[in-house]
Formats: sequence, structure tokens, C-alpha cells
Amino acid sequence: MTTPKYYFEDFKPGSIARYGAMPVERAEVIAFAAQYDPQPMHLDEAAGAQSLLGGLAASGWQSCAFLMRLIAAEFILDSAGMGAPGVDSVRWLLPVRPGDVLSVRHEVLEARASQSKPDRGFVKFKFELLNQRGDVVLEQINSIIFARRGRGA
Amino acid sequence: MTTPKYYFEDFKPGSIARYGAMPVERAEVIAFAAQYDPQPMHLDEAAGAQSLLGGLAASGWQSCAFLMRLIAAEFILDSAGMGAPGVDSVRWLLPVRPGDVLSVRHEVLEARASQSKPDRGFVKFKFELLNQRGDVVLEQINSIIFARRGRGA
Repeated sequence: MTTPKYYFEDFKPGSIARYGAMPVERAEVIAFAAQYDPQPMHLDEAAGAQSLLGGLAASGWQSCAFLMRLIAAEFILDSAGMGAPGVDSVRWLLPVRPGDVLSVRHEVLEARASQSKPDRGFVKFKFELLNQRGDVVLEQINSIIFARRGRGA
Repeated sequence: MTTPKYYFEDFKPGSIARYGAMPVERAEVIAFAAQYDPQPMHLDEAAGAQSLLGGLAASGWQSCAFLMRLIAAEFILDSAGMGAPGVDSVRWLLPVRPGDVLSVRHEVLEARASQSKPDRGFVKFKFELLNQRGDVVLEQINSIIFARRGRGA
């Protein structure tokens, strides 16, 4: 196993990053909906058009999963990440549609060494998922646990 | 389109429901991880064993998706549901593993008619996802929008 690039110490409160360019595929939207969230507005254009979403749109949970894919590729997979205790909040602000191209902007809100476990710390992020027009489609706040550099984790 | 069974008025604060019996398949856990959250502990037993999860376990986002699947089947698909603005909180309390059988317990925390849109209301739920031992593996609080009965939505 190679040494990860990013440890707890690398996430400075106030720092901001932009990354990602993920096209949303219609087939993937429908496949996720069929498997996990088969509400008509996530499966079918006509039903979507009659819904608050105004057209076929991804399940909100798939939008969260798209964000996870983007942050994994950008830094989690090359980090000393140890998992996450949960999610503070998610706001689904705008529909995510086939043909959209998604990117991420994140801000480090807080970095706090664990009191009980000196080998790790909690980093709280605000993640924004944006479409190709720069609209924020999803805002999510959550903490991720990272090992501290040189603490033997 | 048939008339839905459940409207805003059918969700009474304090009411509790139990339902579902969904087996977690190893192939589905790995397929989700490969697509959305390819951290080693979600893909591979050995990597999982070395992680905080103590063995191969589903992505937390897949656990949320499993909960969505269960609530859709139980009542959302037969409701006048109009979508959800987001999620107040998610806590991933215990690993979800292949072989687990998941069920749901929910409590209606609050039901509030919309001030601005008289055809709908917001129902706030606490959802607990349980495994076959009765352990709560995930707790989620979020509101869902439902049409009010007979208001022409």
C-alpha cells in the first residue's frame, strides 16, 4: 500500500477547491431510480414533467452518490481517510438532469483533532455540487475522519 | 393514474411504523461501490477488515439508497408524495454487510401544512434502518412533501 497524499493536516479551515466534470447519463439516472428510488419522476420524462422537478431528474440520493464519486476521485482515494460518521445536512436545490455536467466546489469549515484518539481528526466540509451553468444543485455538509500524519494510523 | 392511498393528512405526529425485510447482496454492495464510492473497504474483504468497518461493508450512501428503496415500496409509491427538499441528518451507526437483512422503523416527528402553498404539507420523519439483530445501522431525519387530500394537487 502506497503512502496516501492527504492526511488530516492537509485540510486547512477556509481552504476552497474546485474540481470534476462528470456528465450525467440518462441510462444511469434511470438505472439508479429503478434499483433504489422508483418514483415516476426519476424514471420517465412525462412523469417528470408533471412533477415539481419539471422533467426527468435524478434521485436526490443519486446526486449524493455522484458527489461521492467526484470527491473519491479527487482526494478521498489518495487520502488517509478512515470513513465518515454521517451527514450534517443535504439540500437538494435544483434538479439534476441527463446531459448535465457536474463539478464540485468544497470549503473546509473546520478541522478538529480527536480528543480520545490522537491518531486521527475530523474535517468538516461544505460540498457544493454544480451543473454546467454554475448553478448549485446540491449542498452538503459533513465530516470525514482522516489519520494524522506520522501518528501510526 | 390511480388515486394515491396516502396524503399529507395520513401522517400523524407520533405514529410509528415497522416494515421491510431486504437482504443485502454482496454483488450489489460491490457494484455500488465500484460505481460511486470505490473506497477499498467497500470493495474488498481484506481491506474492509483493516478499516474501521472491520470487514466488507456497504457505502453509507448505499445504505441511504437501501432505506429509500424500502420506504418507496412501503408507502412513497402509493402516496401523493411530491419530493423532498433535502435531509436534516444522517448517522451511519454500524456497518451494513452482505448477508444482513434490513428493515425500517419510522416515526412521524412533525406534520406542517405549507403556509405559502395550501395544496401541500411537509412531514418530518425519523427513519431507522435496522439489521436482522435489531441493531440500528442508520438513523436519518428528513422531511417529505405530500399533497393535501382534496386540495386539487
